[in-house]
Amino acid sequence: MHKVIFDTDPGVDDAMALLFLHNHPEIDLIGITTVFGNASIETTTRNALFLKREWGIRAPVAKGNGQTYDPARNTAGWPVMIHGHDGLGNIGVPETIDLPVDPRPAHRFIIDTVRANPGEVTLIAVGRMSNLADALRQDPDIAKLVKQVIIMGGAFDVPGNITPAAEANIHGDPEAADVVMGAPWNVVVVGLDVTMKTVMTRKRLAELTAANSRHLKLLSDISQFYIDFYGRHVKDEGMVVHDSCACVYLVAPELFTTRSGAIRVVTGGIADGQTIQKPDGRAFPPGDWDGLPSQHACIGIDADKVMALLDETLVR
Amino acid sequence: MHKVIFDTDPGVDDAMALLFLHNHPEIDLIGITTVFGNASIETTTRNALFLKREWGIRAPVAKGNGQTYDPARNTAGWPVMIHGHDGLGNIGVPETIDLPVDPRPAHRFIIDTVRANPGEVTLIAVGRMSNLADALRQDPDIAKLVKQVIIMGGAFDVPGNITPAAEANIHGDPEAADVVMGAPWNVVVVGLDVTMKTVMTRKRLAELTAANSRHLKLLSDISQFYIDFYGRHVKDEGMVVHDSCACVYLVAPELFTTRSGAIRVVTGGIADGQTIQKPDGRAFPPGDWDGLPSQHACIGIDADKVMALLDETLVR
Repeated sequence: MHKVIFDTDPGVDDAMALLFLHNHPEIDLIGITTVFGNASIETTTRNALFLKREWGIRAPVAKGNGQTYDPARNTAGWPVMIHGHDGLGNIGVPETIDLPVDPRPAHRFIIDTVRANPGEVTLIAVGRMSNLADALRQDPDIAKLVKQVIIMGGAFDVPGNITPAAEANIHGDPEAADVVMGAPWNVVVVGLDVTMKTVMTRKRLAELTAANSRHLKLLSDISQFYIDFYGRHVKDEGMVVHDSCACVYLVAPELFTTRSGAIRVVTGGIADGQTIQKPDGRAFPPGDWDGLPSQHACIGIDADKVMALLDETLVR
Repeated sequence: MHKVIFDTDPGVDDAMALLFLHNHPEIDLIGITTVFGNASIETTTRNALFLKREWGIRAPVAKGNGQTYDPARNTAGWPVMIHGHDGLGNIGVPETIDLPVDPRPAHRFIIDTVRANPGEVTLIAVGRMSNLADALRQDPDIAKLVKQVIIMGGAFDVPGNITPAAEANIHGDPEAADVVMGAPWNVVVVGLDVTMKTVMTRKRLAELTAANSRHLKLLSDISQFYIDFYGRHVKDEGMVVHDSCACVYLVAPELFTTRSGAIRVVTGGIADGQTIQKPDGRAFPPGDWDGLPSQHACIGIDADKVMALLDETLVR
């Protein structure tokens, strides 16, 4: 069993990824930590509680502090055109959910849980890297105690999506992401190079919902607004399932091709938030990537098999 | 006939490109302007005169001012491990060449020549962008009078070669390159995405030299040191023919695939000198690429046909 803390900003594709983690028989979801990005920290936390209640998820929810790693960094508005004003496709999520939030802030929950399960916890982070970087700032030694960090974010050999250089999760807190990439733990980055190839069509989602409406009815309702947005940008009318990709990596890494090498994140300037890898085996003069741990960037994917595994797990 | 000013820092692969331009029947080489990069401005200018003399090239040589666009920018040492201490593979180029240099600085030569041939001149720039940017600074209106600008430089969907982010020509004067990419002329960027696929093997160069030793003996002598360096990094023992690629583009653009979109160059930070394109047709929030002209980045190449055309032209 894979023990997982899911660091998330639900968010529509976050909801799908959460259902994947909840349903998959080899995954033990032991915590949900919330971060801001797709919506404010209040909204994403409320949404996490809502999905927990609706889907009967046992894992506790711990709320992030809603701040970038460098508090001086300006944060732009929320992407309401993609995730809706409620962060879940404008389905009318209740204002408050009558479920308790873990008393600890997200980064403290991460530290405590990792320390209680040394070498066993995988962190899957699909929003900004703020909570992970805060955890490292508070307790750098946890890096050696985490089994693996899987990140949805970044763009290596392809353009970004929030700027031509940067992907939105990383762009939302580049200082945090640079800390996370440079820490001595095992990071796998599942970025736009591969996620843009994974599309859930509206038609397929309807078929899955018809096959098992227990959890999928809600997921389908949430997703329509997001598909309305993404449908214009992808081949078949559908949605890119960025966050689910990172979760599939956990149980089926053989469906991905990775490239190893130190990863830095640009902070400031026109490339702000860009992820840049120094591929192992390539020689350069001494520079800014030296002495950092070799991490893994996904550069290839068997998208058909990833989508099949996602389908199969969502309908369980 | 294509009227060409060749802006160059010879440089071993520059020498090959110069011979291509000199030999090709559809190219009228009307000027050589020198820039620093592979060696100092004194050395590259001396080398241009040397090659002009040895190969009987009629085009005048105008010397660049040997400064970056922003004089405050630090310039690192010369890549003597690649091009040798004399910039031409340590073959023992004479200290001085008894040929006149054009009295005008390179950027003024460019301005005058473009104004004397409105709409007819192609600038092929295979070193730092300093001279082209200086020409634009002195006389911005020439942008509309230049037929085409073909640049060897940059790295879009692949790592750089001087840092993981940047290619050496652009990295050597990023402020200049950003000016050149943003000017209202037609720029084609032939970067590492395609040039790394064009390799002249030591064996092939020997065969060509045997077929026609008139000019190729010198080119072969110059290239051995460069091949000694590059041979370790490319598949077959050979040299990457970066600069020749840009020259082949002029006469055979159909051998390249390009992507259109505004191009910016990062100045400062860990991505200093990186080229980033906003592909046309991709939507982003308002940002740093807005309002700039759409330029062309080469992202694909028929390397076999490019090499065949290069071979054929070099032995003429």
